[in-house]
Amino acid sequence: MNIALAQINIHVGNFEANLAKMLEYTARAKAQGADIIAFPELATVGYPPRDFLEFSDFIDKAEHVIAELAKAADGIAIVVGSVSRNPVVEGKDLYNSVYFLAGGRVQQVQHKTLLPTYDIFDEYRYFEPASEWGVVRYQDKTIAMVVCEDSWNVGNENPLYKINPMDQMMAYQPDLIINVSASPFAYDHAAERIEVLQTNCRRYNLPMYYVNHVGAQTEVLFDGASIVLHADGTVIDEMPYFREAMRIYNTEEVNAKDNVSGEVPKDKLTLIHDAIVMGIQNYFGKLGFQRAILGLSGGIDSALVAVLAARALGPENVRCILLPSQHSSDHSVNDARQLAENLGCQYDIVPIEGIYDAYLEALRPHFWGTAEGLTEENLQARARGMLLMAFSNKFGHILLNTSNKSEMAVGYGTLYGDMCGGLSVIGDLYKTECFALARYINKDGEVIPANIISKPPSAELRPGQLDSDSLPPYDLLDQVLYQYIEKRQSPQDIIAMGFEEALVRKTLRLVNINEFKRYQTAPVLRVSSKSFGMGRRMPIVAKYLN
Amino acid sequence: MNIALAQINIHVGNFEANLAKMLEYTARAKAQGADIIAFPELATVGYPPRDFLEFSDFIDKAEHVIAELAKAADGIAIVVGSVSRNPVVEGKDLYNSVYFLAGGRVQQVQHKTLLPTYDIFDEYRYFEPASEWGVVRYQDKTIAMVVCEDSWNVGNENPLYKINPMDQMMAYQPDLIINVSASPFAYDHAAERIEVLQTNCRRYNLPMYYVNHVGAQTEVLFDGASIVLHADGTVIDEMPYFREAMRIYNTEEVNAKDNVSGEVPKDKLTLIHDAIVMGIQNYFGKLGFQRAILGLSGGIDSALVAVLAARALGPENVRCILLPSQHSSDHSVNDARQLAENLGCQYDIVPIEGIYDAYLEALRPHFWGTAEGLTEENLQARARGMLLMAFSNKFGHILLNTSNKSEMAVGYGTLYGDMCGGLSVIGDLYKTECFALARYINKDGEVIPANIISKPPSAELRPGQLDSDSLPPYDLLDQVLYQYIEKRQSPQDIIAMGFEEALVRKTLRLVNINEFKRYQTAPVLRVSSKSFGMGRRMPIVAKYLN
Repeated sequence: MNIALAQINIHVGNFEANLAKMLEYTARAKAQGADIIAFPELATVGYPPRDFLEFSDFIDKAEHVIAELAKAADGIAIVVGSVSRNPVVEGKDLYNSVYFLAGGRVQQVQHKTLLPTYDIFDEYRYFEPASEWGVVRYQDKTIAMVVCEDSWNVGNENPLYKINPMDQMMAYQPDLIINVSASPFAYDHAAERIEVLQTNCRRYNLPMYYVNHVGAQTEVLFDGASIVLHADGTVIDEMPYFREAMRIYNTEEVNAKDNVSGEVPKDKLTLIHDAIVMGIQNYFGKLGFQRAILGLSGGIDSALVAVLAARALGPENVRCILLPSQHSSDHSVNDARQLAENLGCQYDIVPIEGIYDAYLEALRPHFWGTAEGLTEENLQARARGMLLMAFSNKFGHILLNTSNKSEMAVGYGTLYGDMCGGLSVIGDLYKTECFALARYINKDGEVIPANIISKPPSAELRPGQLDSDSLPPYDLLDQVLYQYIEKRQSPQDIIAMGFEEALVRKTLRLVNINEFKRYQTAPVLRVSSKSFGMGRRMPIVAKYLN
Repeated sequence: MNIALAQINIHVGNFEANLAKMLEYTARAKAQGADIIAFPELATVGYPPRDFLEFSDFIDKAEHVIAELAKAADGIAIVVGSVSRNPVVEGKDLYNSVYFLAGGRVQQVQHKTLLPTYDIFDEYRYFEPASEWGVVRYQDKTIAMVVCEDSWNVGNENPLYKINPMDQMMAYQPDLIINVSASPFAYDHAAERIEVLQTNCRRYNLPMYYVNHVGAQTEVLFDGASIVLHADGTVIDEMPYFREAMRIYNTEEVNAKDNVSGEVPKDKLTLIHDAIVMGIQNYFGKLGFQRAILGLSGGIDSALVAVLAARALGPENVRCILLPSQHSSDHSVNDARQLAENLGCQYDIVPIEGIYDAYLEALRPHFWGTAEGLTEENLQARARGMLLMAFSNKFGHILLNTSNKSEMAVGYGTLYGDMCGGLSVIGDLYKTECFALARYINKDGEVIPANIISKPPSAELRPGQLDSDSLPPYDLLDQVLYQYIEKRQSPQDIIAMGFEEALVRKTLRLVNINEFKRYQTAPVLRVSSKSFGMGRRMPIVAKYLN
């Protein structure tokens, strides 16, 4: 039997386009001799569809896609994730299901049992868990169809769920497992995912055909990397990262371990780089925008965003705006200009002094007798943000936000100033990771001027200002932040690791009192296991560690 | 037996303050002869604690509060909601529980079964549902302790859950039910809540002592309104709305229907008014701020916010900034000034023309040959936003956002302009509701100048501009929005109600393409059953009805 895995990029709610794409892949797979083609979880509607699932009309449209796909399941079977209605009056209205379409109709539907409701996931918000399990008999094979998380409770030392649906299906002695997934990318998740799937294969002594989403849904990035495993856990093949692809696997060859191509190498910086490039591309593509704009300060953060945007959209679609003030050093302007030239991006220089002075003038009678300070620094950052938004409005470009995770964490940024923008490109990279990614980008030649990477970080909002005046050194700060944000360690635990108590307490306090700023920030392309945004839900008005 | 219900205002994560408050109420109840005092759901940690629940240290602190409360449970029993750890390796790490503390120790713990995971709720994100049920025997009574939602599946025509924990507890033949809740306010929810509780009483023929949270947790408002019901469903007493209170009920009197004071009258506008005032008060109080600032345009939205803020914080703590441009009409400035004087609030006038001109000047070489339009209108709104933020920074006031629900829905507002602010005060009120609330405020005399209410709405960003140039009449628009947002109707359904097809399609499209703006807006005080914010989770990058 030949099984095609189609890791496709789905657009949430774009039913026509999603159907057309699946029909096209199905025709191609059939022409290439596939007996079955498998599409990812909730492929009809996109993942995550979020509260659109509460609209009955939205569900009707998904059912229509299934009906149309079923008609195309002629001479080829289609395995596809979709939503289905719960016919029983008790429980939630919907199931998250995998359909088996063959002979022009729906042959089987298996609902998902384990509904992830952590981090970015909200599945129990919408779905009733399965309470019945079955398999599909097709041609000479018995197939266990599994949706994503249903394979994730296996072999877990601290299982999140009390039930293990895989065990239930084994009563029917399947010959193979097809898992349809929407498993988001995180730089340390790809390797973990393979281990989990291997544990399944070994436990049940069955091969696994695992097909994943690819593409970005706003902040959530899916890496694809669909995978075929032998019953002994051997990785037969891993499909590409971050691009749509289809491959066809012969079950006899898989069982015989013919053509073992094995795993794709996983380098953290390569993964992050490619994930972000895809994230930008999909954000613009799916919204129907072509061109980006950003403020280029001469610092490392905006330099990184410019490079990533130019790679995602083409340099001709990235417009850089230099917004110098009286506090901008010459080298900043020169470095920024050099970068724009290296990339081949259009750039404009718009000095902000006149605007800044107009603000001070308007405010003078009201601020009489107060000392110059943070307010005036913020005014500069905000004058820049407003100029960038004016370009954005005038020319229909999307403004890219250039904040990094370290500064977002401790609130070292100006709301409505440098925190402006429609998409946060590097908001899930700590400052030290920004440096590492910049060096990675320069590995084969200078793209980012060396001076941008080597000079000490500064917001340049007052003469001689350095980040280190206000913040601990980034190599320390980032470690503390990582322990608190990704690892959810307590102050006591972090101090016990050897970090200075004052540093730890101050850092955690800053994180917690700055929730109000992050609440109003653009969606952040998620590359770590704990990113700011929908996967980290914190009260704004709270009193804990602050 | 005397049962005290203590509807208290809890501060998320403020363990010391929450413990001190509960100890004080316990001492007072004991002095007044109470045998039991009941506090709301998760009273140790506040509701909703959100992802703080993922911090082990946070759970330790909650356990410490329970241990301290247990010591005080001497001569009085304490019923209190808290988090508890799941000792079993399978399943989620935590339970949402109600504790019975007596004789200086924990006598009983009953976990919550039905975990709301809709709208603002995320309980299945954190908690394992109960699978065992019991009761408490205290003095001569058998008591069923229930947490909030566990009473909400009863008598439901379309039950959300497959199990009914109340039925389970009835095996032990309790004499009464104590329900500890965190049931958020919505203007149409209070009446519904009583009906649900009455259904419980009648089904089990038992009296119910229901204690609810009161106070605001950022955007989520709790109304208190704790209630005691006779076994036949008669409302014996309803406690106050929107303020902390304790009352003691004698079980014999309740059973005999002595002292029936019945329900509090529920007027939609009174409830909304009082809810918002409490929301502002608690946002400031719990963050440790005193003073608010807002831009007063002479329009109805900012007028409403000024009144509500003055009532919440005192007029001496509300500073109004008038920010006229060349397009501001004289009457706008006069109306705004008159309102500030009526309220007794400080006001400042800061003309924005100089700043606006400086922006145009800086942008002239880059915008050469383009037509004046939306960009320039947005610049005015943003110059205002930045000035307000400068006041906010300089004097440590929190900027109040003045957007209404209609304009937030259709994106008729400027991101980083009039959409600035730390808290959205009327973001859950449609424009027509704003008018109604303004008239309500003026019912006993003119607080808001009549002209502000009677003149046609305008953003005053170009000469002679009216909202009705860009938007359908608000009485139509708001009905369509309500059907789509609150009722989740499809375009076909709304058209079938008699609304024009073009109007419906345009409106729904505007709602969906403006998710990106709402994503970056301040938290909105929630007064309806479907508010923008944490209770309405939509993809930004999607293609549905747009």
